[in-house]
Amino acid sequence: MASDHILKRFDQELERLNATINEMGGLTESQFAKALAAVRERDTQAADEVIADDPKVDALDQAVQEQTVKLLALRQPMANDLRVVLSSIKIAAALERIADYAKNTAKRSIVLTHGAPPAAAVAGIDRLGRLVRAALKDVLDAFANDDVDKARDVWNRDEEIDQVYTGLFRELLTYMMEDPSTITACTHLLFMAKNIERAGDHVTNIAELVSFRSTGQSFAEARRKGSGALYSTDGAS
Amino acid sequence: MASDHILKRFDQELERLNATINEMGGLTESQFAKALAAVRERDTQAADEVIADDPKVDALDQAVQEQTVKLLALRQPMANDLRVVLSSIKIAAALERIADYAKNTAKRSIVLTHGAPPAAAVAGIDRLGRLVRAALKDVLDAFANDDVDKARDVWNRDEEIDQVYTGLFRELLTYMMEDPSTITACTHLLFMAKNIERAGDHVTNIAELVSFRSTGQSFAEARRKGSGALYSTDGAS
Repeated sequence: MASDHILKRFDQELERLNATINEMGGLTESQFAKALAAVRERDTQAADEVIADDPKVDALDQAVQEQTVKLLALRQPMANDLRVVLSSIKIAAALERIADYAKNTAKRSIVLTHGAPPAAAVAGIDRLGRLVRAALKDVLDAFANDDVDKARDVWNRDEEIDQVYTGLFRELLTYMMEDPSTITACTHLLFMAKNIERAGDHVTNIAELVSFRSTGQSFAEARRKGSGALYSTDGAS
Repeated sequence: MASDHILKRFDQELERLNATINEMGGLTESQFAKALAAVRERDTQAADEVIADDPKVDALDQAVQEQTVKLLALRQPMANDLRVVLSSIKIAAALERIADYAKNTAKRSIVLTHGAPPAAAVAGIDRLGRLVRAALKDVLDAFANDDVDKARDVWNRDEEIDQVYTGLFRELLTYMMEDPSTITACTHLLFMAKNIERAGDHVTNIAELVSFRSTGQSFAEARRKGSGALYSTDGAS
């Protein structure tokens, strides 16, 4: 049943799936970077481009799903292949959401150009954004090179991102209290900060998936110990 | 290869998968309702319960994933079965996120009890929450009864939810501007409103998936016309 021919085709399809995810990662990274530039430089054209290009990310997510189905159809799925294939769906979904947060940030940056947000607050958004962007870049490298150590490094940086986010959140509240005329602008910055922090959560999830895909164990599981693997195949025939 | 025995086992596993999703839906609905009550009645005990019970939803999501893998392993997946199985993963993921938004809302409700949020704003959150809760209840019924018409009705209500959210957002900004001492409380209410609106988006996604699972077409696709189905199996062998 599982002839050499089918096995070879499976490997080819798997390679194609990885290439699609790498492409999706590259596009997501560029969308995220461009959204940050739009905020930093009040560049509505860059923001418009991010919004216009978001369907390209969705199309790649769709492609991943379709390729996954083909892979599953090529042979009766076994534990390791299933793990790789299902992790791929989840990594693509996480990238799609990161791109979505980039799009939302771009949209809010356009609204912000109508107001006068406190410069220090905008700088804070950029600082948080650069942390997440660096983590995104590294986790994509970790995926491309199947580098679990690098993924663990990204996973460990989540706490710092959360701390910077919390500090920024409090900072924004003080600007609003000091000058109520900044409330609308600062509210958009608050949501931007939240979008970026959530994007960071998804970067952390991808780091987990890179580990899980490769070793069958996530970092949290390794830390908790004794917890079962994400996709048990007990009793699967 | 696909003996009657395997076919029967497949149907049994599928039934079990549906039962797990129904259970997950019921728990998510009760978490969501309890989070709203926690906000409305400043009930920190209810909020604590929502937070404590969130891992139960995660465990059911995990169970759906494991059962899905077993189903896929039982036989080489065909177009219809794949659609049902992959839709189930996505419905579970959407429920998991709705429960997550309920948990976040519950957490913020605890912080809010330390302040004095404007009563009208809290009432606005409750109004928005009730709309989403009703949509959640209906989409779960639509799933349980495979009722595409009911799912379409839920899908159509998304616009109203968005309108109510936008109105509430603006209302909250005015409270903050009028009385800067409410800024911290209103910021939590802003994020709560966003959480509830996002939960509503996921309810809409589930409505799409109920349709897609049953008919192979989502409502948006039916509206756009000519768009391909979500899981193409062209060329799958």
